[in-house]
Amino acid sequence: MTSRYWSDVARELSPYVPGEQPKLGSLIKLNTNENPYPPSPQVSAAISEELTRLRLYPDPNSERLREGLARHFKLSVDQVFVGNGSDEVLAHVFLGLLAQDEPVLFPDITYSFYPAYCALYGVDYEEIPLSEDFEIRLSDYRRLNGGIIFPNPNAPTGRALSRESIRGLLEHNTESVVVIDEAYVDFGAESVVELISEFPNLLVVQTLSKSRALAGLRVGYALGDADLIEALDRVKNSFNSYPVDRLAQAGALAAIEDQAYFEEKRLAVMATRDRLVADLQGLGFEVLPSAANFVFARHPEHDANDLQQGLRARRVLVRHFDATRIDQFLRISVGTEEDSAALMVALRELIG
Amino acid sequence: MTSRYWSDVARELSPYVPGEQPKLGSLIKLNTNENPYPPSPQVSAAISEELTRLRLYPDPNSERLREGLARHFKLSVDQVFVGNGSDEVLAHVFLGLLAQDEPVLFPDITYSFYPAYCALYGVDYEEIPLSEDFEIRLSDYRRLNGGIIFPNPNAPTGRALSRESIRGLLEHNTESVVVIDEAYVDFGAESVVELISEFPNLLVVQTLSKSRALAGLRVGYALGDADLIEALDRVKNSFNSYPVDRLAQAGALAAIEDQAYFEEKRLAVMATRDRLVADLQGLGFEVLPSAANFVFARHPEHDANDLQQGLRARRVLVRHFDATRIDQFLRISVGTEEDSAALMVALRELIG
Repeated sequence: MTSRYWSDVARELSPYVPGEQPKLGSLIKLNTNENPYPPSPQVSAAISEELTRLRLYPDPNSERLREGLARHFKLSVDQVFVGNGSDEVLAHVFLGLLAQDEPVLFPDITYSFYPAYCALYGVDYEEIPLSEDFEIRLSDYRRLNGGIIFPNPNAPTGRALSRESIRGLLEHNTESVVVIDEAYVDFGAESVVELISEFPNLLVVQTLSKSRALAGLRVGYALGDADLIEALDRVKNSFNSYPVDRLAQAGALAAIEDQAYFEEKRLAVMATRDRLVADLQGLGFEVLPSAANFVFARHPEHDANDLQQGLRARRVLVRHFDATRIDQFLRISVGTEEDSAALMVALRELIG
Repeated sequence: MTSRYWSDVARELSPYVPGEQPKLGSLIKLNTNENPYPPSPQVSAAISEELTRLRLYPDPNSERLREGLARHFKLSVDQVFVGNGSDEVLAHVFLGLLAQDEPVLFPDITYSFYPAYCALYGVDYEEIPLSEDFEIRLSDYRRLNGGIIFPNPNAPTGRALSRESIRGLLEHNTESVVVIDEAYVDFGAESVVELISEFPNLLVVQTLSKSRALAGLRVGYALGDADLIEALDRVKNSFNSYPVDRLAQAGALAAIEDQAYFEEKRLAVMATRDRLVADLQGLGFEVLPSAANFVFARHPEHDANDLQQGLRARRVLVRHFDATRIDQFLRISVGTEEDSAALMVALRELIG
């Protein structure tokens, strides 16, 4: 590769590496935090109905979907932004809101896409170390900054902060945007959406990929003051007028509106998680308290990379991050009860 | 709007304004260059089959779709990049390839998203005037530059350049990337895809929105030397790992593989265009020679904005650009024969 034609930006990037998406079937896939249950049956129905209109551009502003989200969260439609997965939404957040003179703050152990966005847009950042027991210490974020972002619950630790502790941060941090990335919030953490009316600098990002089981459809959204949403709209309209296709707009709306199905499945995932934690502890694992659809666990006597390889040989995929402080942990997505049982069989073979 | 929390980038943007997407039915929609025919029936079939897998992330690299495109164009898979519509592909092209020290060159009258990308990424650019009769004069592009981009056929004029004339440009311009935006090429212009093997700095961008009738599905792609494609991949993987959802990957592949349907429909559009041009000329319009699925026309005695408003009142949408040099033109998408007939009825009422 010569790269003689690349821009300086292209040369200097550190792209994000997503979890493996195996093409072979019959693997037990606990490596990318997908929901083990299918989406609401209303989703397929809505998408099938939309198939007759594919020749026409989608609504560039996703009005019906945004109205549905606004109704669901008791916000107004100008407080809602939607994008092609929460990854795209976050990219626009970094460029439109977090590209400031002062560095943006995020945890040293967190969603590893954040530094990739910073490299893409030349955003200065500072990583704030988690505590010894892998908690976000909000007192460490009380310093001059160009913005603050972290997931709640955090990834890949699964640990959550309370709404009141985030309120405390917002009361002190009024001069820059605070982004709470709630990708996993529906599995047991407290959302801060209800604080949006109080804090004009609070932006909440969520996704339909996890609790709504639509990872394959790519829809994420941001909720916040209309002024913050307008910045995202301006970036979006300078990037891609139609980021959410017709089928995604229709399917996402159907998923949001089927609240009963959503409640049933998220509670099922949480129940399986709690049993999985107990099973792992029974095998000697230390498991961080999880409010997400994954657990973060290490075994005092077994190397994490060896365990991941051993599980892979037994057709169970989990994720291992070869990164400082967490290289002895495995991140294990919560699947079905059958997935947990298969995982435990494989782990017992490895750990015995 | 206070905008106190926006980044400088967000403050200084000049977002693109897409054509109107009316929510009411029963309008004759000749304003956004959509295909009047539905996509291949294979598309719905492929999408329906994929609906059972929505809970799982899509292939982040769209391998099967890229393999299908590579087969179709007789390229290798590492010469193919796909994205969420050609608008997203173009955005990555501007950041990954065209953000250079020297200005990028494009026509003064062209796809109006190009300057929006430049504002988004701080790319310097120079607009090269079209000739008096609205042609791209390639001799004007023989100057120091950080890249060259134009649509072929150009939009909104519809005028095309020959493959040999673009070869001449490439022979002279070897130090920067030349991007040919072939959104409309299937309606009668010569593609330069076959020149990719000769010129490592040639990138061709196409879309499934027009000739494949999939505007609602959002799939575009770039074809070029593997080195250029790698730059786009690096940007994409720093922006959004999964830009093309499962349904879009499946539907796009089905559309590419149904070549017979594609040929039938693009020839139908071209035949309707040629009759429409004759009809408009019969009413006294000057019509630029079009190799696209739209025509660009002005009437010596009737104001273009008045005509657009008059057509709208008669439920026919066409596009008018309030821009220097072209404010007396209408851009009229080619629809069905019935659409043309309705347009002509309305125009005869207005001009009669």
